[in-house]
Amino acid sequence: MPDRDTVLAELFSALSVGSFSTAADVLNQYAVDQGPVLDLQQPMAVVFPRSVAEVQTVVKWAARHQVVLIPRGAGTGVSGGAHATAGSVVLSLERMNRILEIHPEDEVAVVEPGVVNADLNAAVEPFGLMYAPDPASYRLSTIGGNVATNAGGLRCAKYGVTRDSLLALDVVLADGSLIHTGHRTFKGVAGFDLTGLFTGSEGVLGIVVGATVRLKYLPVQTRTLAVFFEDFRTAAAGVLAVGRARVQPAIMELLDGASLADIDARMDSALRSRGGALLLIQTDGLAADLEAAEVVRAVAGLGGRVFDEDPEEAARLLELRRHSRGMDADLETRVGEDVAVPRSRLVDYIAATEELALRQQVNVRVVAHAGDGNLHPTFWIAEADPNGIRRLNDALDESVEIALSMGGTITGEHGVGQFKLRWLGLEQSPELIGLQRRIKELFDPQGIFNPGKAV
Amino acid sequence: MPDRDTVLAELFSALSVGSFSTAADVLNQYAVDQGPVLDLQQPMAVVFPRSVAEVQTVVKWAARHQVVLIPRGAGTGVSGGAHATAGSVVLSLERMNRILEIHPEDEVAVVEPGVVNADLNAAVEPFGLMYAPDPASYRLSTIGGNVATNAGGLRCAKYGVTRDSLLALDVVLADGSLIHTGHRTFKGVAGFDLTGLFTGSEGVLGIVVGATVRLKYLPVQTRTLAVFFEDFRTAAAGVLAVGRARVQPAIMELLDGASLADIDARMDSALRSRGGALLLIQTDGLAADLEAAEVVRAVAGLGGRVFDEDPEEAARLLELRRHSRGMDADLETRVGEDVAVPRSRLVDYIAATEELALRQQVNVRVVAHAGDGNLHPTFWIAEADPNGIRRLNDALDESVEIALSMGGTITGEHGVGQFKLRWLGLEQSPELIGLQRRIKELFDPQGIFNPGKAV
Repeated sequence: MPDRDTVLAELFSALSVGSFSTAADVLNQYAVDQGPVLDLQQPMAVVFPRSVAEVQTVVKWAARHQVVLIPRGAGTGVSGGAHATAGSVVLSLERMNRILEIHPEDEVAVVEPGVVNADLNAAVEPFGLMYAPDPASYRLSTIGGNVATNAGGLRCAKYGVTRDSLLALDVVLADGSLIHTGHRTFKGVAGFDLTGLFTGSEGVLGIVVGATVRLKYLPVQTRTLAVFFEDFRTAAAGVLAVGRARVQPAIMELLDGASLADIDARMDSALRSRGGALLLIQTDGLAADLEAAEVVRAVAGLGGRVFDEDPEEAARLLELRRHSRGMDADLETRVGEDVAVPRSRLVDYIAATEELALRQQVNVRVVAHAGDGNLHPTFWIAEADPNGIRRLNDALDESVEIALSMGGTITGEHGVGQFKLRWLGLEQSPELIGLQRRIKELFDPQGIFNPGKAV
Repeated sequence: MPDRDTVLAELFSALSVGSFSTAADVLNQYAVDQGPVLDLQQPMAVVFPRSVAEVQTVVKWAARHQVVLIPRGAGTGVSGGAHATAGSVVLSLERMNRILEIHPEDEVAVVEPGVVNADLNAAVEPFGLMYAPDPASYRLSTIGGNVATNAGGLRCAKYGVTRDSLLALDVVLADGSLIHTGHRTFKGVAGFDLTGLFTGSEGVLGIVVGATVRLKYLPVQTRTLAVFFEDFRTAAAGVLAVGRARVQPAIMELLDGASLADIDARMDSALRSRGGALLLIQTDGLAADLEAAEVVRAVAGLGGRVFDEDPEEAARLLELRRHSRGMDADLETRVGEDVAVPRSRLVDYIAATEELALRQQVNVRVVAHAGDGNLHPTFWIAEADPNGIRRLNDALDESVEIALSMGGTITGEHGVGQFKLRWLGLEQSPELIGLQRRIKELFDPQGIFNPGKAV
């Protein structure tokens, strides 16, 4: 068996100059994404291919030598899906960042995986189009990374998640071969939905090297309402009231008082003084005004104070919401969650979470993509707190169990990655997990693609 | 090896009385769906389970004796996906037709696979909700059948196809075990998207015995415009003009002159006298009027005559469109196609199809879900035409090749079934087909589920 340096030298000799690194600071930087770190490991190297052919070269090399590859976009994931493992090579797709085609009449674009979400949106905006999925990280995260986690965002309730905007994928398989899944048309049912199977599979089935996306119409107008309520439970009732009016806002975000206070402290805003919880609603399209009026009518009985925001303030509020998670990375003492529950259970979930935080003596603040029932509670403890880590982990476990007991899921949009594997067995049966592992083995018999993640 | 009668007797003894049949007329009726028949075969028996447990009993029996099962909903498919094969048993899910749950606040319903699409819609309408996918067969076809083909319909451009309304599935696997895929929440990314993998897989991977669907808001109002143009090409240009205005109608159907004349002859209407092609557009929701005004403005330059239809006439026009395929089943002398092309190529596709029909001396009429670029040309010949069948088949081949050459697909919404297998290799690479066959083998190593279909 050749030694590690020989094996790496073989790889580097096949790549263009500057498209690999073993520098200590680079290995450090690419060792983890923004998820909680359970077992810090450095990769052997990081490679930065610029073409499909280079990705195939890397994969064939990895298959030959049974080296584990960790595919990675911008590393903004929060479940540890891109954490390195011992002896691995990180395969960063960030330099494959070209927008290859934009077809305004077909409402389709073709992109390399490293294209940043916001860059694609900027490129199609002149045509009156948008790429709808908008994770909070949209200014940094890549389309390839969004595909890997089937990323959501703020606009999902109306415009769907990443899967709903994907038509086709180019994927390098574990033997280095390249396949093209899906179709360029809006509809197409030839064969199995492999595009869907790869989406959200967190890089364990293949390396996405291209995506054909369906663009949606950029709304001609938007209306943004900030509705402040006494407390979070009443605000959650407001979500149901809007739903009962059968109005579909583009954005419907819920922030509790602790989140408002936290934003105020960091961003120099004054949200908490306006109420104990904020329901931030944006309607869009030609009916934006009519829908906003329906929203106001729907929440009238709940005592909410409605602020009709001008576009500038609306944009600022949405930016504040996107930063509500606080500093990006999770810490040992602070972890963000990502459960989802059926919408009618939002109120119950919040009540149970407040109760458990009190009982476990941990701090909690909650924001939610309320239109989707997708909750992001952040639990934290003081750094000096003895037994704090244990209580924090107990709280996390319990918060996930509460969501599951209400018919929910352990992850609405962040993915299982490495961090949430411990809960997967609570949501899915052994038969279902077994079937998925057999699919994984079929696609990647040597286990070279991101092992220990997703399933 | 036990003989056929013994094997069947073992099955029947395990099922409740009346839930199986070997009567000649029943075998005849269940031998085929509405697709073209290439190789008429009768099944050994038809079974009508009423419960998940009974389906499991049937599958375990089939696995034990290596008997092929042909799963079937209402048999309205048009690609032969439910055609029986020699020695098979047809597994009809039509009696599992209970709506198990409706949650108006969660906007979710849980149904058995045999629930008829229209029945689900009728049940949720009082709550201001709808099940969006609406294949032309919606009055007859079942949710399970819709799942098997990932059925589309008229409202897809705005509301998506079947996959977009599915949250979770209950599926009996080839060993008789039961799994539950997906989630009850709008978002959820735990594990692989098996819900998507089963959707559109035409019963070759597992038997869908339950579906959790996401309901959409029933539009509070609709506006229907019938725009008659000189010819089909100008009408297709109208589709692009509406797209360019960035207005998203709920329905945008295109019918050529021959289709209008055919409807007139069968349905006692007088559409053809109003123009050479019809673009039928429905806008819906609170912005229905505003969007309709944008549509009128968009098509103004193309010389279309716009009829603003009252609701009754609008409903009648949509019904006429749904019946535009003519008699349901395909015949040897008349076959409906189901290609899709990128929208900007609609005009080119139609020009090329008209040219080929002339050259091959076959008749053609075309309707299209124009918003999706999904075309349904129907080709036919006179029954007494010598060499007609050959020319018809040449025309079909060529029409599919034209779609593919324009970046299209061989099937937008009907599925590959048995009939379109001959074209699958033109759209998908050997590597892609090989991968799908390996997935099929993983799920169904004995090949008991609907062999010779889909992939």
